[in-house]
Amino acid sequence: MNDSVNPSAIKKSLPAELLQALQSLLEDRCTVSSAVRQHHGSDESSYDPMPPDAVVFAQSTAEVASIVRLCHHYGVPVIPYGAGSSLEGHILALRGGVCLDLSQMNKMVAVHHEDLTATVQAGVTRKQLNLEIKDTGLFFPIDPGADASLGGMAATRASGTNAVRYGTMRENVLALTVVTADGSIIKTGTRAKKSSAGYDLTRVFVGSEGTLGVITEVTVKLYPLPEAISAAVCSFTSAFDAVNAVIQTIQMGIPVARVEFLDENSVRAINAYDKLSLPEKPLLLFEFHGSAHGVKEQAELVQEIAAANGAGNFEWATQPEDRSRLWAARHNAYFALLQMRPGASAITTDCCVPISRLAECIIETQLDCERHQILYSIIGHVGDGNFHVLMLIDPHNPVEVANAEGINSRMVTRAIAMDGTCTGEHGVGMHKMAFLIEEHGSGAIHMMRALKHAFDPGNIMNPGKIIAWDDPHIQPQN
Amino acid sequence: MNDSVNPSAIKKSLPAELLQALQSLLEDRCTVSSAVRQHHGSDESSYDPMPPDAVVFAQSTAEVASIVRLCHHYGVPVIPYGAGSSLEGHILALRGGVCLDLSQMNKMVAVHHEDLTATVQAGVTRKQLNLEIKDTGLFFPIDPGADASLGGMAATRASGTNAVRYGTMRENVLALTVVTADGSIIKTGTRAKKSSAGYDLTRVFVGSEGTLGVITEVTVKLYPLPEAISAAVCSFTSAFDAVNAVIQTIQMGIPVARVEFLDENSVRAINAYDKLSLPEKPLLLFEFHGSAHGVKEQAELVQEIAAANGAGNFEWATQPEDRSRLWAARHNAYFALLQMRPGASAITTDCCVPISRLAECIIETQLDCERHQILYSIIGHVGDGNFHVLMLIDPHNPVEVANAEGINSRMVTRAIAMDGTCTGEHGVGMHKMAFLIEEHGSGAIHMMRALKHAFDPGNIMNPGKIIAWDDPHIQPQN
Repeated sequence: MNDSVNPSAIKKSLPAELLQALQSLLEDRCTVSSAVRQHHGSDESSYDPMPPDAVVFAQSTAEVASIVRLCHHYGVPVIPYGAGSSLEGHILALRGGVCLDLSQMNKMVAVHHEDLTATVQAGVTRKQLNLEIKDTGLFFPIDPGADASLGGMAATRASGTNAVRYGTMRENVLALTVVTADGSIIKTGTRAKKSSAGYDLTRVFVGSEGTLGVITEVTVKLYPLPEAISAAVCSFTSAFDAVNAVIQTIQMGIPVARVEFLDENSVRAINAYDKLSLPEKPLLLFEFHGSAHGVKEQAELVQEIAAANGAGNFEWATQPEDRSRLWAARHNAYFALLQMRPGASAITTDCCVPISRLAECIIETQLDCERHQILYSIIGHVGDGNFHVLMLIDPHNPVEVANAEGINSRMVTRAIAMDGTCTGEHGVGMHKMAFLIEEHGSGAIHMMRALKHAFDPGNIMNPGKIIAWDDPHIQPQN
Repeated sequence: MNDSVNPSAIKKSLPAELLQALQSLLEDRCTVSSAVRQHHGSDESSYDPMPPDAVVFAQSTAEVASIVRLCHHYGVPVIPYGAGSSLEGHILALRGGVCLDLSQMNKMVAVHHEDLTATVQAGVTRKQLNLEIKDTGLFFPIDPGADASLGGMAATRASGTNAVRYGTMRENVLALTVVTADGSIIKTGTRAKKSSAGYDLTRVFVGSEGTLGVITEVTVKLYPLPEAISAAVCSFTSAFDAVNAVIQTIQMGIPVARVEFLDENSVRAINAYDKLSLPEKPLLLFEFHGSAHGVKEQAELVQEIAAANGAGNFEWATQPEDRSRLWAARHNAYFALLQMRPGASAITTDCCVPISRLAECIIETQLDCERHQILYSIIGHVGDGNFHVLMLIDPHNPVEVANAEGINSRMVTRAIAMDGTCTGEHGVGMHKMAFLIEEHGSGAIHMMRALKHAFDPGNIMNPGKIIAWDDPHIQPQN
């Protein structure tokens, strides 16, 4: 990466006039406290913190616009911050600047239950949204695990366990309010369910990780709460059999709401952590949504498919408490694994491949982990071909760190070679910038850079993430 | 619109060297024949033809790249052409140049039935695609009526009758091969079902109407053919009751595959054209996809909802031939109306609103049509809040032309005021450029223009469509 012409490549402290202006605008919602800066300088990745020079807490789109206009005027980086739950170094203040915390923008703007839409401020979290709409008979399905903010989820193009049925943020955001890099306020869409009206600015900003502008409001689709829900677990002899069962389920058009894969290591960890006694073999965890009869029919078909792929005990969980116990265990898989090696750090990886290549990709990655004697587990949103390896390492042991990075790197290269992607849902941040080039090729990266330069000519929006500002090796391919 | 700095604002004939180079590259697939140019200078809109200076027929992505590189070198417009079925003047050669016909790029590239994806050359039409995959048990659901090309459908962000269940081209394109404005070849995605890998170039090009680059290959999602399909029709006393039945259907989460509205004028026209005897009242036409039991369950629930909204005779069409007859009648609605006034021209409009405002938008538009004594009918993909007014006018009668334009203009303004969009699926072309500004506002249009300038700095890609190259009235809003 080459930052020779990057206007904000050199980290410098905040201009005093800018700090004064921010303080006079926001009073005690502008801080340079070391503790607050430190907290805002790290996410859930394994990077060391890189604190911003100041942290500001905005309460409205107008305030965000004022803040960005000031930073634009002084050429100072702006790093939008939601819940801090990103995983690839998205929010590290690589070049200092102002961290713009949106967590106080946590108001509902409008719920249109007849239209199945809600508009929220960017700091509203997905759990808060579901609580706010619980009397409408509707829900917001996207569940990345963490209680992320809707703004952050949009910026990362997040998804999670329900995506196989309901899609990702890509499919579920109808419109955004965005403050652009020069402090303008724009709306990128309407509440119409579909539109052919010009360039799709909504999807330009969804997944842009704060590098093109600040998302301040999000309009999302809601869904009717299903009349019936049931869950089931079943175990397989191999990851290959488990994935084959999933492929056949998807090919038959069975509208599973969730289908999660847990390898034997994950099952062992959650058995210990959650006091369960699941067979310590590759496992699939299903959830079905629909009418009472429809759910039963889906589950019976899936049970037949699972049996044909050698699945053992197909266990039902029709009672809400049994379902909650199972899904809590699934969501605890990360913490459960952490308990297997006290004091260790977890490295979380992410890739996504066409489902026909998924078993092969998982199994080769498992072999790689075994070969390097790393403590790991694999969980996957397998209906989408998406999986994560969690690795427990001693962050002070350079051999373990290198092994984990090597496993991640080979996994991503493997996924790309299978016509998959270097990240299914965690985003690029700092960590996957080189993989992004490997995946897309120079020509497409050149177009992404043209977009970045057009939307943020001063390179103030979360600089140094997704793509380098310039790179002499990346040129048009003609 | 102001084109003072537009490098290709002034229409001039093709440089002789360019024509020679194209002819030596393509031989008889480069033509300046008047008939061919005339044919390629008009779409299904009511604009007079504006022929290009030459028409070239490409057979590969590499050829497209060569053609665009030549046009780029000479600063000559390139207008990508699929099936010519667009409706808003998308392909008119406003400033001359080269029309790039992709219809000979009609090969299947790959079908991955296990992954439910197909990759096709841009000239493959949707009917051809469904024919090619008919032995896989899969289908491609997007059905805009016309047998459009997949490249054109992607470029227009098309949808149609199945979108309520299966989404639009926005949701169903996984990846594109694109020749950019300088003749580079890029891939915008992979076959992974989801991805957070950088800016969403796929959705930048979906809906860009040939103004940012040439789409040469399209990778789309496929779906399992449903085990069972049934259709039903029912009539209502008013559009209001019909739309209410749809709102309740959607709110209950009933996964209807299609739900089409036809006003009394449409029903009258298709009764005459297709020799049917449907009640000449507002009508809904449903299609249900699923398991045999699931389809029955959906249809029974919808029947209850329809009855609660005063629907009369709920008629079933479970036999394929009955279903085909009904859907053929629906697809003939345009031709059926044309028969009501021999010699007249049809004006087709398009808008989309949040479903809660749909009845109001339709009814006010009907009143406007009645007030201006225009012969019209309304059909709608009402599950998405999308509808079209078809108007029959004498194109040589300026009063009728003005009335039709006025009705269209007021309909669009009404839709935008209801938080809807000026076009649900037909796109912007030349005809809706002013409405696009009305819908998005100056700030967002400014960002769209920044995108256009970044991706096509010479303004050679289908110039004069979607947004004007510059406009002193459009400025950032800060």
